[in-house]
Amino acid sequence: MHIGLIGLGRMGNNMRARLEKKGIEVTGYDTNPAVSDVATLADLVAALPAPRTVWVMVPAGQITDSVISDLEPLLEKGDLVIDGGNSKFTEDFAHAALLAPKGVDFMDAGVSGGIWGLENGYGLMVGGSKEQIERVMPVFDALRPEGPRDEGFVHVGEVGAGHYAKMVHNGIEYALMQAYAEGYELLDTRKDIIKDVTGTFKAWQRGTVVRSWLLDLLVRALEEDPEFEHIEGFVQDSGEGRWTIEEALNNAVPVPTISASIFARFVSRQDDSPAMKAVAALRNQFGGHAVKAVD
Amino acid sequence: MHIGLIGLGRMGNNMRARLEKKGIEVTGYDTNPAVSDVATLADLVAALPAPRTVWVMVPAGQITDSVISDLEPLLEKGDLVIDGGNSKFTEDFAHAALLAPKGVDFMDAGVSGGIWGLENGYGLMVGGSKEQIERVMPVFDALRPEGPRDEGFVHVGEVGAGHYAKMVHNGIEYALMQAYAEGYELLDTRKDIIKDVTGTFKAWQRGTVVRSWLLDLLVRALEEDPEFEHIEGFVQDSGEGRWTIEEALNNAVPVPTISASIFARFVSRQDDSPAMKAVAALRNQFGGHAVKAVD
Amino acid sequence: MHIGLIGLGRMGNNMRARLEKKGIEVTGYDTNPAVSDVATLADLVAALPAPRTVWVMVPAGQITDSVISDLEPLLEKGDLVIDGGNSKFTEDFAHAALLAPKGVDFMDAGVSGGIWGLENGYGLMVGGSKEQIERVMPVFDALRPEGPRDEGFVHVGEVGAGHYAKMVHNGIEYALMQAYAEGYELLDTRKDIIKDVTGTFKAWQRGTVVRSWLLDLLVRALEEDPEFEHIEGFVQDSGEGRWTIEEALNNAVPVPTISASIFARFVSRQDDSPAMKAVAALRNQFGGHAVKAVD
Amino acid sequence: MHIGLIGLGRMGNNMRARLEKKGIEVTGYDTNPAVSDVATLADLVAALPAPRTVWVMVPAGQITDSVISDLEPLLEKGDLVIDGGNSKFTEDFAHAALLAPKGVDFMDAGVSGGIWGLENGYGLMVGGSKEQIERVMPVFDALRPEGPRDEGFVHVGEVGAGHYAKMVHNGIEYALMQAYAEGYELLDTRKDIIKDVTGTFKAWQRGTVVRSWLLDLLVRALEEDPEFEHIEGFVQDSGEGRWTIEEALNNAVPVPTISASIFARFVSRQDDSPAMKAVAALRNQFGGHAVKAVD
Repeated sequence: MHIGLIGLGRMGNNMRARLEKKGIEVTGYDTNPAVSDVATLADLVAALPAPRTVWVMVPAGQITDSVISDLEPLLEKGDLVIDGGNSKFTEDFAHAALLAPKGVDFMDAGVSGGIWGLENGYGLMVGGSKEQIERVMPVFDALRPEGPRDEGFVHVGEVGAGHYAKMVHNGIEYALMQAYAEGYELLDTRKDIIKDVTGTFKAWQRGTVVRSWLLDLLVRALEEDPEFEHIEGFVQDSGEGRWTIEEALNNAVPVPTISASIFARFVSRQDDSPAMKAVAALRNQFGGHAVKAVD
Repeated sequence: MHIGLIGLGRMGNNMRARLEKKGIEVTGYDTNPAVSDVATLADLVAALPAPRTVWVMVPAGQITDSVISDLEPLLEKGDLVIDGGNSKFTEDFAHAALLAPKGVDFMDAGVSGGIWGLENGYGLMVGGSKEQIERVMPVFDALRPEGPRDEGFVHVGEVGAGHYAKMVHNGIEYALMQAYAEGYELLDTRKDIIKDVTGTFKAWQRGTVVRSWLLDLLVRALEEDPEFEHIEGFVQDSGEGRWTIEEALNNAVPVPTISASIFARFVSRQDDSPAMKAVAALRNQFGGHAVKAVD
Repeated sequence: MHIGLIGLGRMGNNMRARLEKKGIEVTGYDTNPAVSDVATLADLVAALPAPRTVWVMVPAGQITDSVISDLEPLLEKGDLVIDGGNSKFTEDFAHAALLAPKGVDFMDAGVSGGIWGLENGYGLMVGGSKEQIERVMPVFDALRPEGPRDEGFVHVGEVGAGHYAKMVHNGIEYALMQAYAEGYELLDTRKDIIKDVTGTFKAWQRGTVVRSWLLDLLVRALEEDPEFEHIEGFVQDSGEGRWTIEEALNNAVPVPTISASIFARFVSRQDDSPAMKAVAALRNQFGGHAVKAVD
Repeated sequence: MHIGLIGLGRMGNNMRARLEKKGIEVTGYDTNPAVSDVATLADLVAALPAPRTVWVMVPAGQITDSVISDLEPLLEKGDLVIDGGNSKFTEDFAHAALLAPKGVDFMDAGVSGGIWGLENGYGLMVGGSKEQIERVMPVFDALRPEGPRDEGFVHVGEVGAGHYAKMVHNGIEYALMQAYAEGYELLDTRKDIIKDVTGTFKAWQRGTVVRSWLLDLLVRALEEDPEFEHIEGFVQDSGEGRWTIEEALNNAVPVPTISASIFARFVSRQDDSPAMKAVAALRNQFGGHAVKAVD
């Protein structure tokens, strides 16, 4: 099988390597000519056998929009575009609608696994038609982890369903990370009792209820930098966590741990908190409690 | 009526002033001789008519413990000790038990109102026996705000009940403050839309559902320092908020907003968050996301 | 001054009564002919002196949309539409844009005060141009509470700003209500200690830090039904709370108490919780803990 | 090696089976004579070679207290008591102090793994002296999972440290479970999009960031009962989650996801929520919003 891959950044490049190792032919395109196999999108399309499969692996939002718009006039009836980026599920509807009049199919693939996917394979959640999914199954089989297909790949539903599942996956991921982090902070705060914080996490890797891949990574991180001396507690968030909460609000689903995780990230990026200034001001007003003055 | 008042700090001094203005005779004792009416606790007790009423207004914990222990040998059957500080309700049981063998009564009084109590009166929540409460009602009437007695004073229950009610009062207070603070931060963040943040809070003072005394104080604070330029978002907490959550845990009562308020204060006092370092480290481990390195 | 008022439900009718009592002439229109002064929107417009002021007080969303669409062809340059309902601030932009080509002005007014506004006046937060606000100030002065204008009325900013402020007001309101409710539940759970729950809330009305209008209402509710025996713990939410969180997410503002309040309402409406079924199933899987079987 | 094991319930019995399979001789005692090897605690002690090792595996609190009190007069200098139950770490201090005057050692072992420990081994977190830990290492090696010792066993610190680590482990566990459960509820609510909820979780088992043992168990549970039709969303909690939050409060550590998890369990067990009755009553008071009346 031979596919086109647009976007050869860290994720795209790793995926290409895994695909090729598993026998899928890949023609890659990137706006950076140094890493691109072809000069233009038109060249990419020309290089592919019909019906074409073009996997788009670029940042969600405007860049994905413009790549898919640019592809539309170049593709033909029966071709397929797969968006493997972190697009919002509602954008998938627009992308499918843009391509539909020409008979070009669209599929959304949520991809999980980060930089470890090259070696371990990627967890895949796909939205689209059964027929197209069957046609490109060799691609999914190459990307997904070894083992039973249904433990690393799922056809979630129609277009949008793959990114929806990935969005929720990431919402869960945020809360899982925060859960371990809260436990870490408590253990770390009581080093008078806990003489071996790293060793405690390490010992949870087998047999315990909390064992997980994120736990393994936390142990790895602690072994590299046991006190996190070289890391600031400053954490970005990408769209999926916020969208998960938005969707939860739209559907009246309570998500207290997922929202707590996002809010913790927001706070982590603030130099000072306007809200807590207001609380300090209030305490001062009613109780005469001293505030900490800005220098 | 003539009572003893132990502790002439900011709160004690204000309460003494209000009591005297309302015709209650007060003999004050403080470890600071400059403000004390008498040299020793024994002198204080000697100065009071039997049955004596001694109001203790010192920091909760060891200081309250030691004042009550020191009073015990000096007092007589029928005398009364009122703890008006912010003691935990469980400590009241111990203090009552310490005094009971000698026939000395104990009462706990939760006092709310801060530095405004001198002028406005104090909200009072009292635990103890009906008889003693009736005997010292002139004291409560002097301290409480003008208006119907039951809108500023309550006999909550037996010993401990007054401080229990005050504890919950403070738990609620924390969440109320946090609620306004979150709204403030959102309005402040969208000054592109909200051209008059202070004016918006000011306009909520009459007619709206959110009007309250805390709102009035927030307006006051904003008028003094509209951007909170001179205040750091660093907020202490006293015991009552934590005890409220502890009690909620002991009784399986969900208190999500009260706990969120306390946690926000904890975070406000951290230079960097160990938990968020762990989250940053995890993101780096699985996604290769850059961490913000400590300089 | 003479204005048109569209929507004569509970809110609209009360506002009309207050306006008339304060000397504003009101022609009312409602789809219910029994309460409407005129038969059609066209009749309403015809009844008003130019430049016309039409206050729309109908449910947010489609109904507000269609009323404003229907008004557009009937109005003339210089006329003004005020949306006093609970529209999302982003909808205001669309409504202003719809009316602008004809030279019809638009203003959004957040209105707080509920059924008490008739008597107490309404807190008003307004977005729009300074000129139009000055022109219709008699209307705002009639609606707002007695007292200084700036304690019950604010010109927040351009179109949309009024509803933005009202949205945040409601977000805060949700968290305030939840704060008192958590305290109530804890006091109510410990009736072994708290012998007078209603009396405790009643005594907080004067002098305390937590005094507020919502507290007064809670006392009123407890006096009517001290154990809330006739009320189910089932709570609706309207759009503003959700939008507040959405906006907070869009602007990376942490709102833990506001979101906790909304989630508590979501849970209150569930017969059973899918999430907690999953937790029960997990406990059963790893610990063999019995689950509570559905009958 | 030959040890005594007190408590032959589900956990004790499984542990005994694993110990025996791995070549440790076990004399078991239980108050239920049908499963006990010996008639009395004295018989148990008599059956063991000195220095004796007695593993206590009974419910935390009064039962553990009384077993250790009953053991104290029967044991001799150099003997060792290991508490493998879910005791609070502060109780360990009392138990060690009770045994110390006689020269009997004490050790606390947090044990994780539930009913799967028999087959997979148990994660072990131990507090106590290095010498005693080395002496009984064969017991720990028999109980812990196959693989490197430090991935299933840790000497956390002095007495109390093992249960402290286990307490935090369980706090994390609660939040992890809640995270998956929130994601489950959102996916389950949008079955219009997510055509295969079970399949989605199943596909997360390999390659994804959220893979874990709890996820594997959730898949297992969903495969047994895909809609959780036979399970009520009613979830108990044991002491460790609450203690984790208490400790966090004592140490000013923010634990928003752990506390959200506990509160969700509290709510899950309520027939109706007093707090939400109060919120419903408030909405009715200010807005005239209908309440849902109790039938």
